[in-house]
Amino acid sequence: MGKVATAEALRFMVDCLKAVGAASTAAQQQAELLIQADRLGHPSHGLNRLEYYVNDILSGACSPNNQPKVLKESASTAWVDANNVLGATVSHFAMDIAIKKAKETGVGWVTVKGSNHNGMAGWWAQKAADKGLIGMAFTNTSPLLAPTRSKQSALGTNPISVVAPASDGETFYLDMATTSVAVGKIEMQLRKGEPIPNGWAQGPDGKETTDAELAFKTQCLMPLGGGERTSGYKGYGLAAMVELFCGISSGSNYGHHVRSWSHSGDGGPANLGHCFVAIDPECFAPGFGSRLTDSMRHWRQLEPTDPDLPVLAPGDKEKRCAQITDSEGTVTYVKQQIESSAALAKRLKVEPMKVIADI
Amino acid sequence: MGKVATAEALRFMVDCLKAVGAASTAAQQQAELLIQADRLGHPSHGLNRLEYYVNDILSGACSPNNQPKVLKESASTAWVDANNVLGATVSHFAMDIAIKKAKETGVGWVTVKGSNHNGMAGWWAQKAADKGLIGMAFTNTSPLLAPTRSKQSALGTNPISVVAPASDGETFYLDMATTSVAVGKIEMQLRKGEPIPNGWAQGPDGKETTDAELAFKTQCLMPLGGGERTSGYKGYGLAAMVELFCGISSGSNYGHHVRSWSHSGDGGPANLGHCFVAIDPECFAPGFGSRLTDSMRHWRQLEPTDPDLPVLAPGDKEKRCAQITDSEGTVTYVKQQIESSAALAKRLKVEPMKVIADI
Repeated sequence: MGKVATAEALRFMVDCLKAVGAASTAAQQQAELLIQADRLGHPSHGLNRLEYYVNDILSGACSPNNQPKVLKESASTAWVDANNVLGATVSHFAMDIAIKKAKETGVGWVTVKGSNHNGMAGWWAQKAADKGLIGMAFTNTSPLLAPTRSKQSALGTNPISVVAPASDGETFYLDMATTSVAVGKIEMQLRKGEPIPNGWAQGPDGKETTDAELAFKTQCLMPLGGGERTSGYKGYGLAAMVELFCGISSGSNYGHHVRSWSHSGDGGPANLGHCFVAIDPECFAPGFGSRLTDSMRHWRQLEPTDPDLPVLAPGDKEKRCAQITDSEGTVTYVKQQIESSAALAKRLKVEPMKVIADI
Repeated sequence: MGKVATAEALRFMVDCLKAVGAASTAAQQQAELLIQADRLGHPSHGLNRLEYYVNDILSGACSPNNQPKVLKESASTAWVDANNVLGATVSHFAMDIAIKKAKETGVGWVTVKGSNHNGMAGWWAQKAADKGLIGMAFTNTSPLLAPTRSKQSALGTNPISVVAPASDGETFYLDMATTSVAVGKIEMQLRKGEPIPNGWAQGPDGKETTDAELAFKTQCLMPLGGGERTSGYKGYGLAAMVELFCGISSGSNYGHHVRSWSHSGDGGPANLGHCFVAIDPECFAPGFGSRLTDSMRHWRQLEPTDPDLPVLAPGDKEKRCAQITDSEGTVTYVKQQIESSAALAKRLKVEPMKVIADI
C-alpha cells in the first residue's frame, strides 16, 4: 500500500490524459471524477480506471476533444450525442442541461448516446444536489449480469444513483450497482483465498457458486437479490429499467450489444448510454430538507442487531471515507496500483506519481 | 378455492364500496384497481384488500367523496393533496396530470400527500404506458422493512414500478416491492409448514430467520438483497429513495411516522404519500419501442440454467396470468377469501358474490 497526496494523484491523472491528447478541461474533469471515487472509498472507479481511458484514447475508441451536442430538446428533456468524448465531459454537459431545465420547469431529464464510461454515477447525481436539487444518474455498462434463470450475462452492472440535499449539512447519497456485487468484490475474496457467499455470482453451468476463482473466471454476476427464491428477478428488473433509461431511450448500444471493456482499448467506440435527471424539491411540500434529515437521523439511532455495527443512513460510508481522505490530504493505493501507475508514467513520459509513504 | 366470474367480482367490490357511502365513480375506480391485481396474479392486492378499504371508510379514516386538489404547480410538476380520498381516486387524478405534463414538456412528476393505499403500483404506471409514455409510480406504506443492521422496521415495502410500451404488442412491466418479499409469501410458507429461505425476514433478535412462524409474528422484512454480505443495504437504499419521492417530497406521513394498517380501520387517516411520473420517449432517439422489444426477446431466448425454466422478461408472469384470467373470464379465490366476502356481503347488506365453481 502507498500513500499519495490527493492533489498529486489528481495532477498525475491530468498529466496522463493530457499526454495522450486530451485538452486541459477534458483531462481535468475526467481526473476529478476518478479522484472522487478514490476519495469516497470506491477505488475500483478511481485511479484504477485511468489506464482504460488512456488506452481508449490511444486506440481511437474515444475522441476526447470532440464536442457533445444536443440532438433534440423539449422544455424538460434533451437528447444528447456525446460524440465519443470522455464520460466526464458529456456528463457535465448533460447534467448542466438537466439542472437548468429543473430550475425552469421543475424537472430535467436528459439521455445521452455515443458516450464512454462516466465513472461513479453518484458524482453526477451529486452535481444536481449541490444546486439544491434531487439528482439522479444512470448508465449502462458492459454485459456482466445474468438475468434470472439465464446461463449467460445480458445486462451491465447498470448503476442507479440518487443524491438529495437535506438540512443541517446532511446529504442523502445512494449509488449502487444493480448486481449483487461488483467484480472487484469477488477479486478481493480470491486474493484473501476465501469463498464468496451465495447470491453473488454464477459458474459456467449457470448455477450459484461460492468458488471465488470460478466466479472470477466466469464473470457472470447475479442481480441484486441473488437467486430466484430471494427475488433476484427484482435486481434483474432494475438493471433492465436502467437500460431502458439509458441505451433504449438514447439509441446508444444497449444490453447485449454493448462491447466488453478491455484493458487494451480494443473493440472500437463504446457508444454507451447515460441518463441524467434533476428534480426541484421546492416544487412540492415545504420542509423537504428537514424531513430528509429527520429520516436519516432516525435510521442511525435504530437499535442495531450487533451493538458494534451501528445502523447507517445511505451515504454514511462514503462520507466517512471522504472525511478521512480530506483530513489526511492523501489517498491510499494498493501496491499493484502504485506499480502500474509508475509503468504508465514511463510509457506516457509524464512525471511519475510521488508516493509519500509505503504503509 | 372458488371460481368467480371476473365481472361478478368487480360488481361485488363496487357494491360493497357504494354500500359504505363511496360515490359511483370512486367505487368503480377502486374496484377496477383491485380486480386488476387478482387478474394479474397478485391476490394480496385484490379482493383481499377490500375489507380494509371498507373499514377505513366506516371508521372515517378515509373520506371517499372528497375532492383531491392541486396545491402547487409548475410546467412539469404538481403537488397534490388527496384530501383523504380512496387511493384509486387520487392516483387517477395525479397520473392524469403527469401524463398531460409529459405530453407538453416531455416529463410530468407529481407527488401526493393525504392519501390512502393505492393498491398495485404497476396499475398506475401502466396508465401512462397506455398513452405511449414511460410510466412510473411509487408509494410509501406502513413500516415493515428493517434497515440493514437494525432490529426494528423503519420503512415500508415501498414499491417501484416502471411500465413502458414496446413495439409489436410488447410491454415492459416492472412492479416490485423493495423488500425481499411481501409478508404474504411468508404466510404461504407457514401454511405449507415449510421454512423460509435466508434473506427474507428477521426474528425479534434482529437476526435472519428461516422459521416461517417466527418471521410471520415478527413482521420485520429484510430489504431486497437480504443481509449485509449480499448487499441488502441496496434494497434499504431503494426503499429510502421511494420514501424520498413520496412522503419526504409530498409532506405526507413518512417512514416511521406512517401508521400500521390494521384490519379494523383504527388509527385515523393514513396520510400516505405517492409519486407518479410520466416521460415521453419520443423526446429521445426514434425507435424506442423496437429496441425495447429487441431486448425483451433477447432475454427470453437466453439459454436457461434449467431447461424447464425459461428466462422471462419483466412482466411476463403477469401477462400470462392475465391471459388465463381473460380467456376463462373468471378469477379464483382461496376458500377463506370466499368466506370472508360472504360475511362482508351480509354485514353490508349487499348481494353476495356468486361463486360459480368450487375447485
